[in-house]
Amino acid sequence: MLVVPGPASSELGRRVASALDVGTVGVHHKVFPDGESYIRLEGSVDGETVAIVQTLAPPQDTNLLQLLLLADAAKDLGARRVVAVVPYLAYARQDKRFLSGEAVSINTVIRLLEAVGVDRLITVNIHEEDILRRFSIRAESLSAMRLLAEHFLEKGLKGAFSLAPDEGALDLAKEAAEVLGGGYGWLRKERDRVTGEISVEEREFNVSGKDVVIFDDIISTGGTMATAARMLKAQGARKVYAACAHPLLVGDAHGRLLEAGCAGVVGTDCIPSPVSVVSVAPIIAEALRDEI
Amino acid sequence: MLVVPGPASSELGRRVASALDVGTVGVHHKVFPDGESYIRLEGSVDGETVAIVQTLAPPQDTNLLQLLLLADAAKDLGARRVVAVVPYLAYARQDKRFLSGEAVSINTVIRLLEAVGVDRLITVNIHEEDILRRFSIRAESLSAMRLLAEHFLEKGLKGAFSLAPDEGALDLAKEAAEVLGGGYGWLRKERDRVTGEISVEEREFNVSGKDVVIFDDIISTGGTMATAARMLKAQGARKVYAACAHPLLVGDAHGRLLEAGCAGVVGTDCIPSPVSVVSVAPIIAEALRDEI
Repeated sequence: MLVVPGPASSELGRRVASALDVGTVGVHHKVFPDGESYIRLEGSVDGETVAIVQTLAPPQDTNLLQLLLLADAAKDLGARRVVAVVPYLAYARQDKRFLSGEAVSINTVIRLLEAVGVDRLITVNIHEEDILRRFSIRAESLSAMRLLAEHFLEKGLKGAFSLAPDEGALDLAKEAAEVLGGGYGWLRKERDRVTGEISVEEREFNVSGKDVVIFDDIISTGGTMATAARMLKAQGARKVYAACAHPLLVGDAHGRLLEAGCAGVVGTDCIPSPVSVVSVAPIIAEALRDEI
Repeated sequence: MLVVPGPASSELGRRVASALDVGTVGVHHKVFPDGESYIRLEGSVDGETVAIVQTLAPPQDTNLLQLLLLADAAKDLGARRVVAVVPYLAYARQDKRFLSGEAVSINTVIRLLEAVGVDRLITVNIHEEDILRRFSIRAESLSAMRLLAEHFLEKGLKGAFSLAPDEGALDLAKEAAEVLGGGYGWLRKERDRVTGEISVEEREFNVSGKDVVIFDDIISTGGTMATAARMLKAQGARKVYAACAHPLLVGDAHGRLLEAGCAGVVGTDCIPSPVSVVSVAPIIAEALRDEI
């Protein structure tokens, strides 16, 4: 197997290759003056299994097109098998027709990945597990929650309470609690599908004087996390941390969380960002081991 | 038939519908704070033939994804047939593997359009006619050259000389010359595939005291056109105009052409721009007439 570190995940790609002790094929990448992407594989992939590592962080559409160009080119150049490692799968939140006439964007993304000959998809903490069943190819979602929880363990947060900011994240908090001890809980979130407005139900936790880590798959604008952090601080929590697999951190999300009382924000390199201190390379390498 | 004016070609889409006297289905479109596109068809397409008009001008990747979302959603919502009207087809210049390992980007774009169920493609002045034969679906390229030449005719340029800035544009200049009279000629261009540097062979034309229009499919940085314009002005041409179907006009291409001695730059609404004074709506409407 060869690893192709895509332009959006070049560092993570190299880490995965290094963890597996397999070779890489570099990508020569540039953007033409008019905005078109140029992609060139710098080594042979003929007859090989290739794992293309390319996240769909912003700019999502350009990163997606680069992934599609890479997969299509690899197959065209004789690759036997293409595994798309997409640490952050964009468009996963548009997974239903919430209003009539809407595009179910994630279904289109799946169709495109399959159309260019991707044989297997590996992602991390997909927004809804149900999406995996829509693939015709093998598709799996790894979880970065243990790695995140272990990071907090190292920072001395053994016994901290793990909180899910909504029911969708409950399994994530549960997973983290297995590492941190300290129990877990969850909040109930309501999103108005037309206005997009979010409200969180007030709920009492036994967190007075305790450290708390809020775990979610993604921090986008940070609104939900900030609301949860404020609630916990008001209930007497000592230190509150925000943790996620995908630190999208739109606009001033980071500042917003600190302002809401968070002592820190921690993410993974699924999306390279200033808070991406935890690498998912070990779990991706583990998942790829059966391709060698 | 219904016309869907895509976000990148909303005005042209409405003009096409109006020329054909058919209804439109609006598109509710927004970009989420994190950069993901949201697409919603505002009316029913069930059982209908729909013509989605969406150019692939910059930002190409986002416009392409929106087109793919629209086509996939239309099919999913019961459209009988989807015609993709893509006035400017991006990535058409990466139509060969110039260096080993390169992605042949246009082949991937074709694969994606077909994967989402597009039944027919209509574009304008495609960069290479050969690309059309790579589609499995019906695909055709219309020419805007007569419309452009007629624009110059109205401006009093009857008898102007039509010049192709390279051999690839020869047919375009020929077509324009049929409208303008005044004959045609072409230049020979060499592009260094690694450095991208362009040189144009010096060639004498009988243009002294005559008006000249240089016709090409696309004006990107304007480099080739500017070189040609300078050559013609040095040969005593009176007024020199630059005309194209696709005014990409990267950076200060417009200023660059005026500086090179061009009296004006004229493009079409294949790519909305300040010089897009000619509409391709009539030829697109004509091509769509057999869908009604």
